[in-house]
Amino acid sequence: MTHSSTNTATVKQVAILGGSGAIGNALVRVYQQQRNTRVWCLSRSQPSNVGDEGFIKADVTDEASLLAAAQTLKQNPPLDTLIIATGALHSEAMQPEKSLAKLEAEAFLESIQVNTLGPALAIKHLLPLLDKGSASRCGVLSARVGSIGDNRLGGWYSYRSAKAALNMFIKTAAVELARSHKHSVLVGLHPGTVDSELSKPFQRNVAPQKLFTPSYSAECLMAVLGSKTNIDSGQVFAWDNTPIPN
Amino acid sequence: MTHSSTNTATVKQVAILGGSGAIGNALVRVYQQQRNTRVWCLSRSQPSNVGDEGFIKADVTDEASLLAAAQTLKQNPPLDTLIIATGALHSEAMQPEKSLAKLEAEAFLESIQVNTLGPALAIKHLLPLLDKGSASRCGVLSARVGSIGDNRLGGWYSYRSAKAALNMFIKTAAVELARSHKHSVLVGLHPGTVDSELSKPFQRNVAPQKLFTPSYSAECLMAVLGSKTNIDSGQVFAWDNTPIPN
Repeated sequence: MTHSSTNTATVKQVAILGGSGAIGNALVRVYQQQRNTRVWCLSRSQPSNVGDEGFIKADVTDEASLLAAAQTLKQNPPLDTLIIATGALHSEAMQPEKSLAKLEAEAFLESIQVNTLGPALAIKHLLPLLDKGSASRCGVLSARVGSIGDNRLGGWYSYRSAKAALNMFIKTAAVELARSHKHSVLVGLHPGTVDSELSKPFQRNVAPQKLFTPSYSAECLMAVLGSKTNIDSGQVFAWDNTPIPN
Repeated sequence: MTHSSTNTATVKQVAILGGSGAIGNALVRVYQQQRNTRVWCLSRSQPSNVGDEGFIKADVTDEASLLAAAQTLKQNPPLDTLIIATGALHSEAMQPEKSLAKLEAEAFLESIQVNTLGPALAIKHLLPLLDKGSASRCGVLSARVGSIGDNRLGGWYSYRSAKAALNMFIKTAAVELARSHKHSVLVGLHPGTVDSELSKPFQRNVAPQKLFTPSYSAECLMAVLGSKTNIDSGQVFAWDNTPIPN
């Protein structure tokens, strides 16, 4: 808490949940490079580029840890920027389904827990920490495949459904946020296809210039989120700032 | 199985999953009144208006029962119409949330299991039974509050998210259905606010002429579903045949 004695009116408070993941950690790095910015990294493990004073242990599958993280953050000035950068496309039990016949109840629920309920609980506990007096912003990592209107290929039943549910959750929370935080913004963000553990098994069909480094994606997302005002709230935007249909 | 000796080419096969619920049972009744129609009622308990020969025990929370129901139906001609009429808005553990602070992980997952995963597993096992040679149709009960674009009031986080996920699932399955069943249709259906156990705690703000009997809603939904062709597939339509945005 060494920074609390500096002029907090000019120090922007940024919190990144999932700050040890590929995109999350790149976001920590790009915000660390901003002037007058204090970056909080909320994650299960402490990344090497985050000091003890900026690390808060948190896990979206453990609601008590989110509540505790919120209590720690509350002892500091309100947040200028909050990014929820968690999610998973595959695990041992969870593989994107190529067809309806591959749907498995357990994997479906795992995807919902990681990609919908986790971020939803994070929104519940952390969104109220946004600064009420300024155009404070929260971005939640979503994905283009969560767009119903954009779905022409089919497949990936569980992941698509979980991200569509998350997009609805974002929209619903944006309606509520507008009542207490008139100038604030809550949006979903599509990072593009980033070279990470999440995309590794699916990179074969991605053109090289469409496979981003985490740093490139993070820089784009910071610019996109920073450009949003309260009229954008509830929507999802891609790394190139194009809106993604519901 | 007494009907299996009649001319099956002219007897339409209709299956209603959730046929013991308020809307489901009204749908059973309106299809029973159609000529040359054999109605199968798939539900947890046998309703009084369904004979033993038309009842198949099935429960969307028990995947094995859906597989068994599909095997029974497979011994009969393919389905002309399939309606998945299951879902719940409230239970002891599950109440529509008025604010983000009321979000509870357990209730969220219960809503997903009943309103998304249950119908999804039903689609997995029953959709392949649609007739490939005709404009066969599947309608899945959804709800206007599952529309992200139509969400202006906020609240009801879990139910909204679960129905948005269901709408994505419907869209994804419609893409796959079009490959095997060129003439078939899969759509979501919004029944309006129907006087039932589901809506009972929320009827206070509904104008009397907007509170439908299950029979009226079922007649509307039968007409809406019957009017759909493969170009409508993947969308959600209301009782009055208006499309609902994603």
